[in-house]
Amino acid sequence: MSTFTALDVQDVRFPTSRSLDGSDAMNPDPDYSAAYLTLRTDAEDAGTALVFTIGRGNDVQSAAIAALAPHLVGRDVEEVLADLGGMYRELTDDSQLRWLGPEKGVMTMAIGAVVNALWDLRARREGRPLWLTLASMSPEELLDLVDLRYLEDALTRQEALEILRRGAEGKEQRITALRENGVPAYTTTPGWIGYSDEKLTRLLTEAREDGFEMVKLKVGADAADDERRMRIAREVMGPGYPIAIDANQRWGTEEAITAVRALAPHDPYWIEEPTFPDDVLAHAAIRTGIHPVRVATGEQGSNRVLFKQLLQAGAIDVLQADATRVAGVNENLAILLLAKKFDVPVCPHAGGVGLCEMVQHLAFLDAVAIGGEDERRRIEFVDHLHEHFEVPVRIERGAYMPPQEPGGGARMHPASIEDHLFPDGPVWAEEQAPLAPTPAR
Amino acid sequence: MSTFTALDVQDVRFPTSRSLDGSDAMNPDPDYSAAYLTLRTDAEDAGTALVFTIGRGNDVQSAAIAALAPHLVGRDVEEVLADLGGMYRELTDDSQLRWLGPEKGVMTMAIGAVVNALWDLRARREGRPLWLTLASMSPEELLDLVDLRYLEDALTRQEALEILRRGAEGKEQRITALRENGVPAYTTTPGWIGYSDEKLTRLLTEAREDGFEMVKLKVGADAADDERRMRIAREVMGPGYPIAIDANQRWGTEEAITAVRALAPHDPYWIEEPTFPDDVLAHAAIRTGIHPVRVATGEQGSNRVLFKQLLQAGAIDVLQADATRVAGVNENLAILLLAKKFDVPVCPHAGGVGLCEMVQHLAFLDAVAIGGEDERRRIEFVDHLHEHFEVPVRIERGAYMPPQEPGGGARMHPASIEDHLFPDGPVWAEEQAPLAPTPAR
Repeated sequence: MSTFTALDVQDVRFPTSRSLDGSDAMNPDPDYSAAYLTLRTDAEDAGTALVFTIGRGNDVQSAAIAALAPHLVGRDVEEVLADLGGMYRELTDDSQLRWLGPEKGVMTMAIGAVVNALWDLRARREGRPLWLTLASMSPEELLDLVDLRYLEDALTRQEALEILRRGAEGKEQRITALRENGVPAYTTTPGWIGYSDEKLTRLLTEAREDGFEMVKLKVGADAADDERRMRIAREVMGPGYPIAIDANQRWGTEEAITAVRALAPHDPYWIEEPTFPDDVLAHAAIRTGIHPVRVATGEQGSNRVLFKQLLQAGAIDVLQADATRVAGVNENLAILLLAKKFDVPVCPHAGGVGLCEMVQHLAFLDAVAIGGEDERRRIEFVDHLHEHFEVPVRIERGAYMPPQEPGGGARMHPASIEDHLFPDGPVWAEEQAPLAPTPAR
Repeated sequence: MSTFTALDVQDVRFPTSRSLDGSDAMNPDPDYSAAYLTLRTDAEDAGTALVFTIGRGNDVQSAAIAALAPHLVGRDVEEVLADLGGMYRELTDDSQLRWLGPEKGVMTMAIGAVVNALWDLRARREGRPLWLTLASMSPEELLDLVDLRYLEDALTRQEALEILRRGAEGKEQRITALRENGVPAYTTTPGWIGYSDEKLTRLLTEAREDGFEMVKLKVGADAADDERRMRIAREVMGPGYPIAIDANQRWGTEEAITAVRALAPHDPYWIEEPTFPDDVLAHAAIRTGIHPVRVATGEQGSNRVLFKQLLQAGAIDVLQADATRVAGVNENLAILLLAKKFDVPVCPHAGGVGLCEMVQHLAFLDAVAIGGEDERRRIEFVDHLHEHFEVPVRIERGAYMPPQEPGGGARMHPASIEDHLFPDGPVWAEEQAPLAPTPAR
């Protein structure tokens, strides 16, 4: 028997804007950050999760997570962990908190953090990585985690159960195959918009040498730059090599169609976030207008109802789930089921702080127990900030290899947290030094 | 010359759950609340705005507003007020904060509060009510306030300008007519789901006696209750009297169609929020399935792109704009223009804390300078909490009469704020008293 004793939140920020790592057409100067949650018990263990943000507002996100403490502190741990479907619904159905969305934005990401921390703790207590904790559940147990409200015009309970039952057939063989081969990654490391052509060329070459079979470039700030960089990338990587492009919501519908058509001679594999993520009808129009270039979106998709509509409208070829944008593992499970129903591959969004470490569990679960074998499935990879995590991702021959260690992947080294606490950690104290007068020596 | 000196936020909550005022199928026990913003200047004046919430989370909403202080404090007041289009874009384009939405939820509502407080201050300095400040601007000035990004597939800059130019013709006559006749209201006061049949009957009778020409009932918790209450309402009000119903997002698509068809013999005027507010495709399917009953939604519509899609898809008959859900006056101006383009009437959402006082300005602007004469336009009215406002709404013969007093309507009496501060104001100290041991005397 144990009890939740505290819900601690820390504001952790990395000064990534110094190096233009992570720069794109909409986000020129991100400071990759984490609203970092530790959910403690009197058994001296804890569940960990984080919400990824890009700097300012990480304090607001932290306050939103802290506001959920009354739902957990003092509760029986075993009882909560035994019914994570019930706990997820308790949090999302808190009618007073729901008003702040509904089911979107800061409060939903906060709920996602709590849900993910509970899953981390449950996996740790089972001694398993999160993907295996989930993959070990029966179809009925998995279905009970999902909230099908507002989805049943696209996915009935019976259809969801059938998907999960089909997913359970041959699961053991797929787990073995996963452990041998992993899930292919693609890398965004070369393609940040602030990098020089020389750096782009060097990093593209390294990506191929490292075994990656797909890369992605940021576009959308300047059409001539986009054309030049895409041309360079095609020359370096050769014909047929998949090169995705990502506009980070920079365009309207007509702009997107014009811009992608202009790059089409260089054979982009997909256009990611061509426009505003909520705009189902625009994505559908863009997809028609740029065929056969694929349309991808989802990293800022606010909830399962948006994904349902993107799928119903035939608006996307690729669904990019994120670990910290929606209400946690449970909502992502609904999204994986919807994608399978519509036969659209899920290629999770990663990068940021700890997203690689977290989203891989969703992709492994999908590969093993929901979507099954699908050569279109790839997980984004960015080679940033992994050194701060207790169990950093393991990439071999261009593929994510499944971790054996227990948990959901979000736990950071204590020293990394302390160094990057905002605004008083040593990294930020240094950062702000130039603003103060230089002391006499 | 003056400077912004402080952005003060107060957490103000009314214990409305005690009386079931405001109870509906999704929100059984709201404590109507305001994250209340006072934007101070060194000229000893201030702009006021609020975000309406229903209790828990009002602290998070307050923190989000406070996080915007660096954008204002220390800035020149006259310069900011002279370019409120620019300030609105500065806030919504802060790329680090944008990540927390984008353009939705807690952070967008916080931006809306700051934008609305700036408009309040500008109107006060002009000595005009907000609606007249806006209505006095030229078509070109109004257009400059709007962000058309992501809208131009439905509303081009030229179309928006033409709407505003047509709206400027005959504006003076419409202002005169507005001052004489106001804008019709409808009342939700009788229809809360927690009220007895006797209270429903009494309040319906009073509503008609007070001159209201439309009422609204909450539905969606229980089909038999809905049928009985709708039947009572029809008997009391007689055939042909408009009785709207409001399900507060309770249903999925098929449930909504079934439920509304079951009530159709009692001739409901519109069904409001039949399902999840983001679900454009579901609203379109429901509208087709329940014709000729009208579909209304919008009080939780997260941004202008959602409203654009609802209009493009032919999903709604009535657009219910809210003063504190989107990014303030500027975003609502875009929404009014979209509605006019698609010839859908805007019937603003009100009630809550101060929403009546705030949304009326949008409807008056619409009536005078955008939508023009439209007998379908009505403003929601709920007779709660008006006594706390410095300029409470004035309802005459069932119509909202335009205020003459300067400002945007959100300013509360200092004593009302102090009494209801959460958690330490006297109203809440009382509320919590039973939880503490009774002191010996």
